[in-house]
Amino acid sequence: MKRTAFFISDGTGITAEALGNSLLAQFENIQFEKVTLPYIDSVDKAHEAVQQINKAGSLDGSKPLTFDTIVDSTIRAELSRADAFMVDIFGTFLSPLEAELHSNSSYTVGKSHSITNDGSYEQRIKAVNYALENDDGARTRYYDEADVILVGPSRSGKTPTCLYLALQYGIKGANYPLTEDDMGEQRIPTVLKPYRAKLFGLTIDPNRLSAIRNERRPDSTYASLRQCMLEVNEAEAMYRRERIPSLNTTDYSVEEISTRILVQTGIERRAR
Amino acid sequence: MKRTAFFISDGTGITAEALGNSLLAQFENIQFEKVTLPYIDSVDKAHEAVQQINKAGSLDGSKPLTFDTIVDSTIRAELSRADAFMVDIFGTFLSPLEAELHSNSSYTVGKSHSITNDGSYEQRIKAVNYALENDDGARTRYYDEADVILVGPSRSGKTPTCLYLALQYGIKGANYPLTEDDMGEQRIPTVLKPYRAKLFGLTIDPNRLSAIRNERRPDSTYASLRQCMLEVNEAEAMYRRERIPSLNTTDYSVEEISTRILVQTGIERRAR
Repeated sequence: MKRTAFFISDGTGITAEALGNSLLAQFENIQFEKVTLPYIDSVDKAHEAVQQINKAGSLDGSKPLTFDTIVDSTIRAELSRADAFMVDIFGTFLSPLEAELHSNSSYTVGKSHSITNDGSYEQRIKAVNYALENDDGARTRYYDEADVILVGPSRSGKTPTCLYLALQYGIKGANYPLTEDDMGEQRIPTVLKPYRAKLFGLTIDPNRLSAIRNERRPDSTYASLRQCMLEVNEAEAMYRRERIPSLNTTDYSVEEISTRILVQTGIERRAR
Repeated sequence: MKRTAFFISDGTGITAEALGNSLLAQFENIQFEKVTLPYIDSVDKAHEAVQQINKAGSLDGSKPLTFDTIVDSTIRAELSRADAFMVDIFGTFLSPLEAELHSNSSYTVGKSHSITNDGSYEQRIKAVNYALENDDGARTRYYDEADVILVGPSRSGKTPTCLYLALQYGIKGANYPLTEDDMGEQRIPTVLKPYRAKLFGLTIDPNRLSAIRNERRPDSTYASLRQCMLEVNEAEAMYRRERIPSLNTTDYSVEEISTRILVQTGIERRAR
């Protein structure tokens, strides 16, 4: 039986999606149709949402689920008129938090993914630009500004990780691909030596690396298992020899790689 | 009075952070020290977390808050021994959801930001690569693969938005900067004509644009208010004349720009 899950917010819907997905992921045997309704910031829009929810319920023949992060209690009250199972974050937790904090909620709409005036948004965008401009060893002269410099074979996950660290946490990550030229002696490439303390190594299962590379350059030497094994072995030998902290990215998402790098290095989030 | 807020998870902590931040954003007059404790996936680690939480409480002289997305009830029980105000997502919502869905939770740890086998993670990484390779009008021959093509003056927010659409939603966004050459006639540039239906225009307050450009090239013609006004006026005239949907990005974060583009265009998320 299909169930429709609605993620509803007065802002982007990103928090409602994250929360809803984390709960729904616990029910692997049920097929969910997921619908996000962002910017539901008026009673009228909530009324339209109610109709959409009820329609999905009739079509499915089962009650929809709603996960909402709507702050305004009038809008939430309208939403609660839907014939749905409602996971109501603010309704559940805001009053107890007000009591605990001896403070009233400001009931400000759409706060959590909007631009704040603490500079953390600027920090994130600057970090994105930094990651783009210091990608793939293109430039090394701004490495003194880096919070972390990812090293590793081509396609081990360096670039998406730098972008995620920037967008999510405002962390400036540069990345430098280890090529065969760098690796013969299993030593840190000369250009990286002044930044040893910032280095973090990525490694990956050679079979997985070969598969990824084959999608980009089919049947090339670059993508061959032999070449991938060689580069991975050399990189791992260098990490061990030079005591560079490292992570095997084979089974991890960019979110997991990024948060594990923060745990292993102790780098502080500059934005959240 | 300072309060420490802990975001605690058996996985990345990203959901706990999003949820906690959305609730804490409602208490603007309180200063929160935020600490994320990811990968708390054993009773021993939970025990260490309890000590860290209690220590923060003693130092602050006030009860810490905890926002956790830990699935395992034994680990959560250990965590609940902390002297803290606990916002317990799974403890609060999982049982009612089990009842509603007539299904037991699989109690799988760290699900929501790990790689799933439905292909959506691959889709996201492919979209990131697509955004990087089709950034800034660098190549136009893959525009047939694009879900959306962002147009707009340089530094109106195109690149970070494409990266966010890719990382968060697996959407392939290309971007094409409108330069003076393109804009004299207020018509769609020839190279974009075959893709008219995919175009989405960004615009921005000229003063804000000038400030952003001045950070990159101080006192240049490029950054001058005069030049910014010219380019913004021409771009907006083109959007109107050619009926290209558009958005003013001045006050919006990349999250807001991205989700508003999805609302305005109806493009479906390919991953969530």
